[in-house]
Amino acid sequence: MIMTSTNADVVSIASKLIACPSVTPARGEVFAVMESLLLPLGFTVDRFVTGEAPDGPVENLIAWRTTGAGPHFAFAGHLDVVPPGNGWASDPFTPDIRGDLLHGRGAVDMKGSIAAFVAALADIPGDLSGTVSLIITGDEEGPAVYGTLALMDRMAAHGLRPDLCLVGEPTSSQRLGDVIKIGRRGSVNMWIKVDGVQGHVAYPHLADNPIPRLVRILSAIEAEVLDAGTDWFQPSNIEITDLEVGNPATNVIPAAAHARISIRFNDQHSGASLIDRITAIAAVEGGVVTAKISGEPFLTQPGALSDLVAGAIRDVTGVEAELSTTGGTSDARFLSRLCPVVEFGLNNGTMHKLDEAVAIDDLKDLTRIYALVVRRALGG
Amino acid sequence: MIMTSTNADVVSIASKLIACPSVTPARGEVFAVMESLLLPLGFTVDRFVTGEAPDGPVENLIAWRTTGAGPHFAFAGHLDVVPPGNGWASDPFTPDIRGDLLHGRGAVDMKGSIAAFVAALADIPGDLSGTVSLIITGDEEGPAVYGTLALMDRMAAHGLRPDLCLVGEPTSSQRLGDVIKIGRRGSVNMWIKVDGVQGHVAYPHLADNPIPRLVRILSAIEAEVLDAGTDWFQPSNIEITDLEVGNPATNVIPAAAHARISIRFNDQHSGASLIDRITAIAAVEGGVVTAKISGEPFLTQPGALSDLVAGAIRDVTGVEAELSTTGGTSDARFLSRLCPVVEFGLNNGTMHKLDEAVAIDDLKDLTRIYALVVRRALGG
Repeated sequence: MIMTSTNADVVSIASKLIACPSVTPARGEVFAVMESLLLPLGFTVDRFVTGEAPDGPVENLIAWRTTGAGPHFAFAGHLDVVPPGNGWASDPFTPDIRGDLLHGRGAVDMKGSIAAFVAALADIPGDLSGTVSLIITGDEEGPAVYGTLALMDRMAAHGLRPDLCLVGEPTSSQRLGDVIKIGRRGSVNMWIKVDGVQGHVAYPHLADNPIPRLVRILSAIEAEVLDAGTDWFQPSNIEITDLEVGNPATNVIPAAAHARISIRFNDQHSGASLIDRITAIAAVEGGVVTAKISGEPFLTQPGALSDLVAGAIRDVTGVEAELSTTGGTSDARFLSRLCPVVEFGLNNGTMHKLDEAVAIDDLKDLTRIYALVVRRALGG
Repeated sequence: MIMTSTNADVVSIASKLIACPSVTPARGEVFAVMESLLLPLGFTVDRFVTGEAPDGPVENLIAWRTTGAGPHFAFAGHLDVVPPGNGWASDPFTPDIRGDLLHGRGAVDMKGSIAAFVAALADIPGDLSGTVSLIITGDEEGPAVYGTLALMDRMAAHGLRPDLCLVGEPTSSQRLGDVIKIGRRGSVNMWIKVDGVQGHVAYPHLADNPIPRLVRILSAIEAEVLDAGTDWFQPSNIEITDLEVGNPATNVIPAAAHARISIRFNDQHSGASLIDRITAIAAVEGGVVTAKISGEPFLTQPGALSDLVAGAIRDVTGVEAELSTTGGTSDARFLSRLCPVVEFGLNNGTMHKLDEAVAIDDLKDLTRIYALVVRRALGG
């Protein structure tokens, strides 16, 4: 195994970031800390606040360092964290090392990874040719309306476009390095409404009960087979997540009935194609559909980028990474519009939970992996 | 047409009853007025209050007069009224004659009919042989737990059991006498619950969504044909009246799903047989059913009693009555356990509405019809 030296102390950096209580959407202190870490490493830093209530304002940060005409490699991630909740063994915003673990909200999702970005970049030899950048948002855990999308606009304004990108989401499952995500399913929610005519149960011929029509729509939706999965994706899946009529009177036929569905879908579909499909099914029974696309799917075909990351993992830890497309959405769905993107980071066992913690050895190994990835991406 | 004399003034009696604000459940004053009207006519009167909150206490009244060993004919009805609501042209509890109409809450449902009972009985010749009785509750419009059922127990304790019974519900539709009800459908409500296992929409294999199972149950229920109707009943009918999941989170598969159905059924079924049937359907998908029977169906086969009432209607008004089993439930469903029972009364056009009113001519004709019915029932 190749061991690289780490001049910067990843544990110290992670601790500084955890100490900033940056519950989503994040602004201010945590970005000031990040800037103070990057400026001494020769990075140009652009911090900006954008957006208005209710989905903003949000702070974002781009940092870049160019040392030649070589390729542009980007790290991407987020400094906001989900609310800590009550019941922690130690204060969630006071980094606390107990045994081999560093505790604190964001330890794995994903201030630990961002600390490893910084420590890895501190360690890159100056003779590599190319650009390294950090694309860091304060709103990944929230609506993400003014987060990575705004960063991508800002990068374009600076003339920056990465050739390869690694998002530091906590993808590892059982041990560091076991899972690289090369894609994510898309997500769309739809609301189905069926109108009828209210009336008395004793006189159904004077009413039009919307519920049997909604039941027929839902039966038809349940019978839909969207696909059988692909080489890299599990089959797309529809879940009915809510039903609502709200009729307190046992002797009244209600005027309207509602249902909500959630579809997680692979790259055989788009949000729009699924909305059209469900709208057509509902229309047969007079149902009306409204929809919100949470994210389109993306897939980075296995190849140079996944090989690069898997090789670095293997060389540092000996672990053979599995390529996966499972789980929810991430900001990689946006960044994939720019260049090949994969996600790789810490173990996600305590992500979003009480007493979130990262193994200190994992932080150090992750720093070594990231440093190898950058070195090899820039031809070192 | 036969015209009978009416010594008692039905309009005056109806006005006295309307003047008592006897919103369901009724007690006190309206029963005192009723007693004061019946004692001078030679009736034995038994008033009693029974039941506890929330469905009681309720006042009820039995009155009977025996003048020989002939048959026992009973009038049945209720002195409670539904709440008047706001917006009346005149005070709902101040009887108000405008033009040909007497206005007031209960004018048709059913203080007008009860006034016609009393006026008719005041007019019966003393040479008839038999028993006439009044079975009057203060809780027909409410839960009816301590109403007519309690009266039937009380009658049994007095050794009273009618041979024929007429309930004075407002059955007339377009003109007085056009509809006699010879039966009513039964009514049962059922609540269906399907339990599942909550989980994240992105990981459906770790959850068990109860909604598709509820949809399959409801599809199966919708496919049920209970019957094709009978000579005297329309087909039994199932309505799904509510759906409820209550899941605010678009990315969560819920833990449970609920539906409610209401069945109006004819004499081919009982409440219990329908509960068994729906329970078996729900069980296939793991659904659990709870149920409440509001009323069992009844049918008095067309014959002596309906002929008697229809003949009296024809002789007084010239109208040919239609025999019907439509509409909701009434206390006739209880009284039908004792003897043949039909329902016949005033026009129901303003029943339960603002500005409830009865035509004064209808009150007088109804009194004549009731008097003829009693006279002929007792062999006069």
